[in-house]
Amino acid sequence: MSMSTSMKFEEFSPTDYRYAVEELRGYLSDEAFLRYKARVEAAIAEVFSQRGLLNEALAREIQEAASKVSPEEVYEEEKLTKHDIRALVNVMKRKVSDDAKPFVHLCATSYDIVDTANALRYRDAVEEVIIPDMKALERVWLKLTRREKETLQIGRTHGQHAEPITFGFALAQYVNRWGTRILKMQEASDRLVGKLSGAVGAYNASSLILDDPEGFERDVLAVLGLQPAAISTQIVPPEPVCDLIHAVISSFSVLANFCDDMRHLQRSEIAEVRERVDAKQVGSSTMPHKRNPVGFEGVKSLWKRFMPQIVTVHLDQVSEHQRDLTNSASQRYIPELLVVFDHCVRRLTRISERLEVDRERMRANFELAADTIIAEPLYILLSYYGHPDAHEYVRKKTAQAYETGRSLKELIEADDAVRIYLDRFTSEQRKRVFEAEQYRGIAAEKAEKIADYWDKVLFKGGDKNKNINGSERMKR
Amino acid sequence: MSMSTSMKFEEFSPTDYRYAVEELRGYLSDEAFLRYKARVEAAIAEVFSQRGLLNEALAREIQEAASKVSPEEVYEEEKLTKHDIRALVNVMKRKVSDDAKPFVHLCATSYDIVDTANALRYRDAVEEVIIPDMKALERVWLKLTRREKETLQIGRTHGQHAEPITFGFALAQYVNRWGTRILKMQEASDRLVGKLSGAVGAYNASSLILDDPEGFERDVLAVLGLQPAAISTQIVPPEPVCDLIHAVISSFSVLANFCDDMRHLQRSEIAEVRERVDAKQVGSSTMPHKRNPVGFEGVKSLWKRFMPQIVTVHLDQVSEHQRDLTNSASQRYIPELLVVFDHCVRRLTRISERLEVDRERMRANFELAADTIIAEPLYILLSYYGHPDAHEYVRKKTAQAYETGRSLKELIEADDAVRIYLDRFTSEQRKRVFEAEQYRGIAAEKAEKIADYWDKVLFKGGDKNKNINGSERMKR
Amino acid sequence: MSMSTSMKFEEFSPTDYRYAVEELRGYLSDEAFLRYKARVEAAIAEVFSQRGLLNEALAREIQEAASKVSPEEVYEEEKLTKHDIRALVNVMKRKVSDDAKPFVHLCATSYDIVDTANALRYRDAVEEVIIPDMKALERVWLKLTRREKETLQIGRTHGQHAEPITFGFALAQYVNRWGTRILKMQEASDRLVGKLSGAVGAYNASSLILDDPEGFERDVLAVLGLQPAAISTQIVPPEPVCDLIHAVISSFSVLANFCDDMRHLQRSEIAEVRERVDAKQVGSSTMPHKRNPVGFEGVKSLWKRFMPQIVTVHLDQVSEHQRDLTNSASQRYIPELLVVFDHCVRRLTRISERLEVDRERMRANFELAADTIIAEPLYILLSYYGHPDAHEYVRKKTAQAYETGRSLKELIEADDAVRIYLDRFTSEQRKRVFEAEQYRGIAAEKAEKIADYWDKVLFKGGDKNKNINGSERMKR
Amino acid sequence: MSMSTSMKFEEFSPTDYRYAVEELRGYLSDEAFLRYKARVEAAIAEVFSQRGLLNEALAREIQEAASKVSPEEVYEEEKLTKHDIRALVNVMKRKVSDDAKPFVHLCATSYDIVDTANALRYRDAVEEVIIPDMKALERVWLKLTRREKETLQIGRTHGQHAEPITFGFALAQYVNRWGTRILKMQEASDRLVGKLSGAVGAYNASSLILDDPEGFERDVLAVLGLQPAAISTQIVPPEPVCDLIHAVISSFSVLANFCDDMRHLQRSEIAEVRERVDAKQVGSSTMPHKRNPVGFEGVKSLWKRFMPQIVTVHLDQVSEHQRDLTNSASQRYIPELLVVFDHCVRRLTRISERLEVDRERMRANFELAADTIIAEPLYILLSYYGHPDAHEYVRKKTAQAYETGRSLKELIEADDAVRIYLDRFTSEQRKRVFEAEQYRGIAAEKAEKIADYWDKVLFKGGDKNKNINGSERMKR
Repeated sequence: MSMSTSMKFEEFSPTDYRYAVEELRGYLSDEAFLRYKARVEAAIAEVFSQRGLLNEALAREIQEAASKVSPEEVYEEEKLTKHDIRALVNVMKRKVSDDAKPFVHLCATSYDIVDTANALRYRDAVEEVIIPDMKALERVWLKLTRREKETLQIGRTHGQHAEPITFGFALAQYVNRWGTRILKMQEASDRLVGKLSGAVGAYNASSLILDDPEGFERDVLAVLGLQPAAISTQIVPPEPVCDLIHAVISSFSVLANFCDDMRHLQRSEIAEVRERVDAKQVGSSTMPHKRNPVGFEGVKSLWKRFMPQIVTVHLDQVSEHQRDLTNSASQRYIPELLVVFDHCVRRLTRISERLEVDRERMRANFELAADTIIAEPLYILLSYYGHPDAHEYVRKKTAQAYETGRSLKELIEADDAVRIYLDRFTSEQRKRVFEAEQYRGIAAEKAEKIADYWDKVLFKGGDKNKNINGSERMKR
Repeated sequence: MSMSTSMKFEEFSPTDYRYAVEELRGYLSDEAFLRYKARVEAAIAEVFSQRGLLNEALAREIQEAASKVSPEEVYEEEKLTKHDIRALVNVMKRKVSDDAKPFVHLCATSYDIVDTANALRYRDAVEEVIIPDMKALERVWLKLTRREKETLQIGRTHGQHAEPITFGFALAQYVNRWGTRILKMQEASDRLVGKLSGAVGAYNASSLILDDPEGFERDVLAVLGLQPAAISTQIVPPEPVCDLIHAVISSFSVLANFCDDMRHLQRSEIAEVRERVDAKQVGSSTMPHKRNPVGFEGVKSLWKRFMPQIVTVHLDQVSEHQRDLTNSASQRYIPELLVVFDHCVRRLTRISERLEVDRERMRANFELAADTIIAEPLYILLSYYGHPDAHEYVRKKTAQAYETGRSLKELIEADDAVRIYLDRFTSEQRKRVFEAEQYRGIAAEKAEKIADYWDKVLFKGGDKNKNINGSERMKR
Repeated sequence: MSMSTSMKFEEFSPTDYRYAVEELRGYLSDEAFLRYKARVEAAIAEVFSQRGLLNEALAREIQEAASKVSPEEVYEEEKLTKHDIRALVNVMKRKVSDDAKPFVHLCATSYDIVDTANALRYRDAVEEVIIPDMKALERVWLKLTRREKETLQIGRTHGQHAEPITFGFALAQYVNRWGTRILKMQEASDRLVGKLSGAVGAYNASSLILDDPEGFERDVLAVLGLQPAAISTQIVPPEPVCDLIHAVISSFSVLANFCDDMRHLQRSEIAEVRERVDAKQVGSSTMPHKRNPVGFEGVKSLWKRFMPQIVTVHLDQVSEHQRDLTNSASQRYIPELLVVFDHCVRRLTRISERLEVDRERMRANFELAADTIIAEPLYILLSYYGHPDAHEYVRKKTAQAYETGRSLKELIEADDAVRIYLDRFTSEQRKRVFEAEQYRGIAAEKAEKIADYWDKVLFKGGDKNKNINGSERMKR
Repeated sequence: MSMSTSMKFEEFSPTDYRYAVEELRGYLSDEAFLRYKARVEAAIAEVFSQRGLLNEALAREIQEAASKVSPEEVYEEEKLTKHDIRALVNVMKRKVSDDAKPFVHLCATSYDIVDTANALRYRDAVEEVIIPDMKALERVWLKLTRREKETLQIGRTHGQHAEPITFGFALAQYVNRWGTRILKMQEASDRLVGKLSGAVGAYNASSLILDDPEGFERDVLAVLGLQPAAISTQIVPPEPVCDLIHAVISSFSVLANFCDDMRHLQRSEIAEVRERVDAKQVGSSTMPHKRNPVGFEGVKSLWKRFMPQIVTVHLDQVSEHQRDLTNSASQRYIPELLVVFDHCVRRLTRISERLEVDRERMRANFELAADTIIAEPLYILLSYYGHPDAHEYVRKKTAQAYETGRSLKELIEADDAVRIYLDRFTSEQRKRVFEAEQYRGIAAEKAEKIADYWDKVLFKGGDKNKNINGSERMKR
């Protein structure tokens, strides 16, 4: 957690003083919101001018007023009007000539401005900061994956030693899952829409003055680089933002999973990885020897706080008739969610960059169960070469090994009953079965293949619509 | 709610006896799950045979065994093994010759079968039943939209009369939102993946026997019509199913919104629409005159029950290392969610088909505030024609009308101060301002346009990647 | 929404600049948290001194240091230590003599301080601000209930006119539900606990020095007015805080229900109540005539945002072994929840104080269905006086009335078949049946009784363990 | 998971065929619900008879009819009426003489019956099955706690070895938390209420016939052993059921925490505990040597599924005016939640009874970090005896030990600079510091004390209103 430079001790919410991302203030702070709203107002004036309904000089007045509003003025005005957009409009009007005044906010309803500004700033924040940050984490994971692709590790299911993998293979899972989430974020961001269809969405006001109110809407949004909603009420349909938040939360959960994995791999008894800490950092106030995974814990904790927010988003899909206002205050908290998510992405990038991997420990842990690992390949090959009940046979031998303390390999080799099957094994198969570390399948190759695929798709212009095996991502 | 024919009084969960969809039993019941799992086992045998590792006759034995397992046998076996897949495998083995036995489930781990079977049955249920049902609802809404496109209705924001729309325009919002959800369902269903990568995902077992374990996986899944996950652990990456459930829940929320709108439009004081009821149906046990929106209420209620389930799905994105089992019992409830959602889609289809629309009542409600409706167009045009503070002017006049009981139109026309602006109005503008029902923008046209667009995209082979205005749905 | 005096435009979270309650900063801001933590450190020194293990002068040094730490110093130190409690301890140590230094934080672990400080400040905030605020709202509702106890209103079920009540009776529901929530808050606050049992809860450190470490813990907490947890790990058991948040969220939901009721009663077609607005306030930027229930909408919206937070609290009940840290960041958001809840309580208090009730409109709405209201009492009395199938009889007559446009009363009186039963009615019964407004049961009396009960329990020292009928609230 | 005897392969919901508790069918199945509803109808007749408004013979007819309704008949009737209570009433009427017919359901509204029956059956299920089951689990944990109170274990925070405890001490945390939840369940169950106040709660119908409708309600509910709500609408206030579900979910989360602890203690590298498995049970289909914590995983998984259901309960606190029906279908799922919770309680009881504790492994794990454990007591005592900066001193020495591979004890004893402080240690203190296993505080004593306290409160008639230290549980 990096403390904000402007410390705010008197605050209730820890977001701004503990989990803020300064680069996002230009998109997601309340002040930034105001600037985005003003940009929408300016775009309206611009298109009025393009269409010859407002002379260029007046349009420029409005655009300039839009670029100069200060949050102080608007808040001051809002205290009177109790209405944020009306406050902005009043402030802008004061800055322009009488002739320009009528054209400020003309034909627009508050939520034309609010929803469009939100779509814009969410999109900009996602495209200019959050996706680049997600990619930066992906790069670190890609590098780790390649570096550790051959590092032997025991695969664990149910917390139990199962079959061999490599640590790079384990990391490649995250490279892949995270890659799909980056595409999902991009997809959701691309589909955000704005509107300029008025108070109930039927272009009631704008069609008073304009022959082609939909064209006008399209042009204003084009100035801002957005598409309009196909149809809207007072507000845009809630689904595009809902899809975006789904992308965020489902991405956040991938991070939570990664943190849990690392936390457990850092357990005293396992100790395969470790967050590196600064020399000055205090691990615990009374247990100075401890090396706690505080970064992983912190991200997991923030996920617990923000993941349930998805429920709010679904509640906000319901708005009565041409809208009620019960999604207003709740939506004001969406920026916070984006910020804390991005904070976590950055934090994990830093931690992942400096992740300490203890390969010797990985091997030592691997050796603990190396003998029993052969159970599976043995059963497979015995089956393959004709043993009628190989699974049960191996299960019993394993139990016997467990009870007698003898090695499974030894027990098997001493058993004449299976000799005829063992003799059919190829030498390569024999090696894979009886040398546990050889029984890691194609872990290393797969890790590399995944790394190459995502490297290409995300960083080298590869076709994101092709799957790793060259097939289309989507049927149609 | 249609009661299941096989009534189950002793049950705890109401899903099966109250909210079931019989057509889905072939996909989503426990028995269907078993059949899908057996199909995966059969596909493995088929590809072994294709590759010449298993002779055709033995492969056919296994495929036949797969097609003949009965739930009774498997459950009986599961009581002993306490393991569902091992039970299936044991039962299948009993049905084949000793030579075929080793090839049953060879190289596969339980979740190769389970996750692949789930992807298959979710996809089939979605494509063969749920999406067709969603489209059937869309058709009804399309028809209603077109039928009611000219029906005057007052638009409502904050529960307050705002500006005119048409009822068809209000419905077109749902046509559009629902259309996007159908595409989202299709998208999510298309991206479901299976796996055959073994116990920890590294193809440990299959690479013992096969040179090209990824190719083998691809071929087995191709038999079933699925793509493999790019990489997997013991389980497929959780995101594709998570995205599917997001599609379901975000669709369900559209229904919840529709139900709320209709419930409120059916209020005694509003009474613009009504669920038609059977002659025999009892409205209330002691208030026989009541016409309750019980269908809309029922769907809303089921949404309240199932929407929070999205949290479970995000919790299930977290599975330790190569998987823990804490997503097993929870995922057994996914079919129920799909079933109840589909039940609600069907229920709303029936209700929407028979929705009673009271056009006279709509008009009567419209008239209640017709006078004040002119406030907005008036302010717009006064602004447009140069009034320096039109919004504030109209706001005051409206308050005056409200207090004096005189009509706003009357007050305005009596006010010499605005005469110079009024004189600049075109006759068309004058009509739109002073005849409230004319002030409905392009509500009817837009309703039709939306209906045409979705009709084309969903039912007439239109390009779903084009937006309504012809632009690409996605930037890239 | 009252804007904070210190406006913070650059913030992400709207809590501090839009929904803050200034009176709570002394309890729930980050600075207040620091002061509470320092108080716990001071209490430890005090009890060391009481027990003669630390001389009084040194203890006083520590207590003074505790009272003088500034957030600036501590944050500055935290940048180095990356550990908030160690930072506090370091800062305190700098302020005392070398002899006192060892006694600062002696025997304590960080979470002895953190959990105890949290219990203290949550309790103080609840008891000194939030419960008084809840009671203030209750007083307003009590007053309204009494004032409106005789105001005739139609009772509504399913959004349909049902049977008569009074508006005071409807309000009394909230008086009662809110009263139970105030007691629940008190109960949960009373049960908050602290701890001083060290790093894993076994008093490892304190039992090095003290013979009676549990007694020491009890004494330190007694200084602060708290009870210790019966047993703890590094942290207190999570359930007491979980119960408190349940009390908050379940109270918040009562407010959400109230807001929905009022929003709907304020609908244009119903218009029985209305939020009073300031003359200067702008209802809508383009529809100046509208009177929107923005306060009710705002509270409902904040509920949608914060209610799902209960999931986080349940997630935080799970902490591995003697604790993991994944509840740390998430718990930092609990103050925000308390603040926003209190903001809503205050906001509804202000709105309720000025709620405009339109009694004429209530009566007018009542009259709409007055005729059909008689269906129920008629059916009851017909049954009571021997009609064998009264419910069905009345249901049919009601349908007939609905179809023919004739009044139900008229149809009934014209029907010879029921004459024999009608003749058995007492004159009082006849009145109650045929004069709809008389058929309101004991609405007014009940409203008053509820008001009296809660007035007594909450404001006049009545026994909160007695139910309204004098029975015990709890069996045992 | 114990499979139900009546297997239901065609079902969607796994609750009935996988997670059912047969003993609860008499309370929580749909059939049981019907019986409870009929009991409420019978109680009404009984009180009419008590009051002399209905002769005894007719009352007996109704009571007998109530006891004889079958679900088959009622469901058949419901297909026609589409209304469950009206169906029940119709069926009952058919079973009585014409003179009794009018008294069936007289004065009652559907939800008088439904809400009262729900309160009854929830209370009975909780008191007769669920709390006894919870106590059975508590007994097992009590026994384990006492048995393992001296078993040395390393305490773990952040997954890192921290300070010594005993395994019994770790278990005592659960004994205590579970004890508080049993009391919370009892409390919530005791506060469930019924109603008989009619369609909008104002006793409109019953006050037609009865002078004292509240007294009538009280008497009917007294027959059933329930209290009435202080005031109600068509439905009882939602908070008592909400509080009950909070008790269930917060209890469930304690189980989830226990399962996580055990799962991790069962990890291959830790292996301190183990679920005992049957000889026949298959651990994994291809890894026969594995010992998976499937019971713990299963309970955790069900918690993930049902915990988010708390959101539904809060959504159901909101019902418009005198009620809308959007809480009806959702509430039909409450029995399922109770059943699955009870299933988990039972399952953990069985697992806990047979939990294998590997004391040697616990000690072996303890020894891993035994040397560094002395860091904390050392720092405490150095501080206590005057070292000015003991924490920093020990932190550095620990780091040195870590880097050089030498023991901390050795480094300390070799350091002349701290000799003067060490010499002040008492011999007892010296032992506790330098023999790590002695540094376990009062872990064993506390474990026993907690066991004794809860044994007394729950099983030996101790005063549940007294805390462990004899203070009052509640301030007032």
